[in-house]
Amino acid sequence: MKPINVGLLGIGTVGGGTYTVLKRNAEEITRRAGRPIRIVTVADKNLALARQVTGGEVELTDDAFSVVTDPGIDIVVELIGGYGVAKELVLKAIENGKHVVTANKALLAVHGNEIFAAAQKKGVMVAFEAAVAGGIPIIKALREGLTANRIEWLAGIINGTTNFILSEMRDKGLPFAEVLKEAQALGYAEADPTFDVEGVDAAHKATIMSAIAFGIPMQFDKAYIEGISKLDSVDIGYAEQLGYRIKLLGIARRRENGVELRVHPTLIPEKRLIANVEGAMNAVLVQGDAVGATLYYGKGAGAEPTASAVIADLVDVTRLHTSDPEHRVPHLAFQPDQVRDVPVLPIEEVVTSYYLRMRVEDKPGVLADITRILADSSISIEALIQKEAAEGEAHTDIIMLTHQTAEKNANAAIARIEALPVVQGKVVKLRMETL
Amino acid sequence: MKPINVGLLGIGTVGGGTYTVLKRNAEEITRRAGRPIRIVTVADKNLALARQVTGGEVELTDDAFSVVTDPGIDIVVELIGGYGVAKELVLKAIENGKHVVTANKALLAVHGNEIFAAAQKKGVMVAFEAAVAGGIPIIKALREGLTANRIEWLAGIINGTTNFILSEMRDKGLPFAEVLKEAQALGYAEADPTFDVEGVDAAHKATIMSAIAFGIPMQFDKAYIEGISKLDSVDIGYAEQLGYRIKLLGIARRRENGVELRVHPTLIPEKRLIANVEGAMNAVLVQGDAVGATLYYGKGAGAEPTASAVIADLVDVTRLHTSDPEHRVPHLAFQPDQVRDVPVLPIEEVVTSYYLRMRVEDKPGVLADITRILADSSISIEALIQKEAAEGEAHTDIIMLTHQTAEKNANAAIARIEALPVVQGKVVKLRMETL
Repeated sequence: MKPINVGLLGIGTVGGGTYTVLKRNAEEITRRAGRPIRIVTVADKNLALARQVTGGEVELTDDAFSVVTDPGIDIVVELIGGYGVAKELVLKAIENGKHVVTANKALLAVHGNEIFAAAQKKGVMVAFEAAVAGGIPIIKALREGLTANRIEWLAGIINGTTNFILSEMRDKGLPFAEVLKEAQALGYAEADPTFDVEGVDAAHKATIMSAIAFGIPMQFDKAYIEGISKLDSVDIGYAEQLGYRIKLLGIARRRENGVELRVHPTLIPEKRLIANVEGAMNAVLVQGDAVGATLYYGKGAGAEPTASAVIADLVDVTRLHTSDPEHRVPHLAFQPDQVRDVPVLPIEEVVTSYYLRMRVEDKPGVLADITRILADSSISIEALIQKEAAEGEAHTDIIMLTHQTAEKNANAAIARIEALPVVQGKVVKLRMETL
Repeated sequence: MKPINVGLLGIGTVGGGTYTVLKRNAEEITRRAGRPIRIVTVADKNLALARQVTGGEVELTDDAFSVVTDPGIDIVVELIGGYGVAKELVLKAIENGKHVVTANKALLAVHGNEIFAAAQKKGVMVAFEAAVAGGIPIIKALREGLTANRIEWLAGIINGTTNFILSEMRDKGLPFAEVLKEAQALGYAEADPTFDVEGVDAAHKATIMSAIAFGIPMQFDKAYIEGISKLDSVDIGYAEQLGYRIKLLGIARRRENGVELRVHPTLIPEKRLIANVEGAMNAVLVQGDAVGATLYYGKGAGAEPTASAVIADLVDVTRLHTSDPEHRVPHLAFQPDQVRDVPVLPIEEVVTSYYLRMRVEDKPGVLADITRILADSSISIEALIQKEAAEGEAHTDIIMLTHQTAEKNANAAIARIEALPVVQGKVVKLRMETL
């Protein structure tokens, strides 16, 4: 059968992995896809690198625009990343009737609505399994595997860098800054780690998952984002004493009046499987009304795991490209005219449980004052640790876990607690999910 | 858009769940599928039950054959189970040009080759997500999500009954027979539990997964099957002391000269996520050459979890039924003319590690004799416990973990050990996988 011709944009880590795996497993992939999937052109500014990776076996160019307009190309794989030229190239490819496979979560989370509308109009597919959780087929699970369900919520460890850092902070009791340096040395964190450690990357992925889980548009600008750079390892220790692990979770939850979409460090009961996902691994937990909880676990980054997802999309597109567009799997799981404008709730409206740590004077009546404030705000306490003051210290720590309440209610109570003269400094607040 | 008309055969637990979920989530499912999916006829011998579940909203019949030949039906959902009439009905439905969705693992594992050949000839789809691991979309992951990979092995906890029993045996230190009674009382085990506890059900599912993972025919009759009814809780305890859990795993592994396909109690390091899958939950671990290890976890049985998989298949078939058969996802992941006759290896050829427990006389030289036999067979020991003999006892237990060796080699060494006069009775042998 006639091969499918692929133009690959970007031959960096994932591009190189895609080239390698497609070549190594060509026979097996053809046996599945029904026809060969062949990279015919590679575009990269770094032609020397492109030549080195491909061994000069395919056409090379430094002009990606020549690929997306080439009539001989069936599918364009965009692995350049970012919102800039990648967006132009993807839209140009669509305009030229090409199917697109991309790993670009930033692009889809921010410009996805525009891109999918253009693809819909042109009757081409835009596939993006590699954009979320690397090699784990979570997009396929949400979009096709769980279609029977009203999805209630999902929560994922979807950034390997931060999970590695949190695992190391807990294992070794080291502060964030020190572990970050280690992660950078090991190649788990980039020189500028902002996107990862501040939760932006996880928010891109959570945004994409929220859209396909709930049938809503991408609303990245409404996501609440809090990273791990301010997390104190003392809280990791206290959480552990209480039977919890702290993970950076991307959470999307359907509620009556909207959708929660948030990324923040989260306490999870240590008995949950997802609490035991360590190092750079990823995992996504999805709660459907029929199926209950399902979990998907694997490598969320790296050359070949991400290539695994890119190529799965290539096989999907190869299998489906002759079908009429009306009968393909919709890009965002729901039919394009069935996407609903459900609002993302502001963080103040989010309802969850909290971990609170406060430094207080070690004298009678302090705990009574604090618990009175919480009771007045109808916040019940689930667990509490009051440390003995260290020898010669006038202050000590109180740590408590609350039951569920709205964030604005928690914030108001915390402000009142901070105003107490016996309380020193700010109250540390972390969110907690029982999942 | 014109609805898709479904004929439902069997309105027991899963049939009832399918009816309920399809009705409850009709709006959401239609938004995904692009058209309503409507059960128009239900066939069951128990018409009173059918009337009770459906509230008389659909046509009822006790003649399933009238459904599979009804020109008004697009998709037949077979939830009768077993190899008997279910096989006739499925073949008749295919013959009549109907797509089929089934949860019937026994039927597919034993007669799948014949059924898929018939479906191929007629150009209809046979979907079976519900046949393996209930609501977990593992068939979709293997068939579509991991197409880039040469799948090296998979190992799954794919029978909830036995996992519940093993969890309880470990938790409470109780013997198999007692926990089985408890499981029966709780509805986790059937009155005749043979298929579950002897590993037959798990072997059906492992057979199906091996076919789509490796592109080979169903070879259920070649599977090695060992259940948990003879498992002694003393071995669960010793395994735990050594840092292992015992799970009933279905394992399929690609090897140079064939494929391993086996179900047996297996020691797994307790640090592995899959070792911590408790109660009636299911999980499948898949190792691909590009993606590495991925894990899929969720409920493997029950009305609504299984219905979740049945309905996902209905949505898939609805989306794909207008595409030309050549471009659909192949039933068994590989194109029908690309299935290869790779043999399943006999258990003697399997290579794995072992847990051995033996009762020996408590006197000098015994351990030397035993380890000499193992050394002569080139079997290295990874860990060893020698218990002190209890007060007044002349015998004691030796427990050892070996490195990998071929089963026939292990068996020969064990026979020599059992022949030693200082060894009492049989050596207990369990297989071990590091995964």
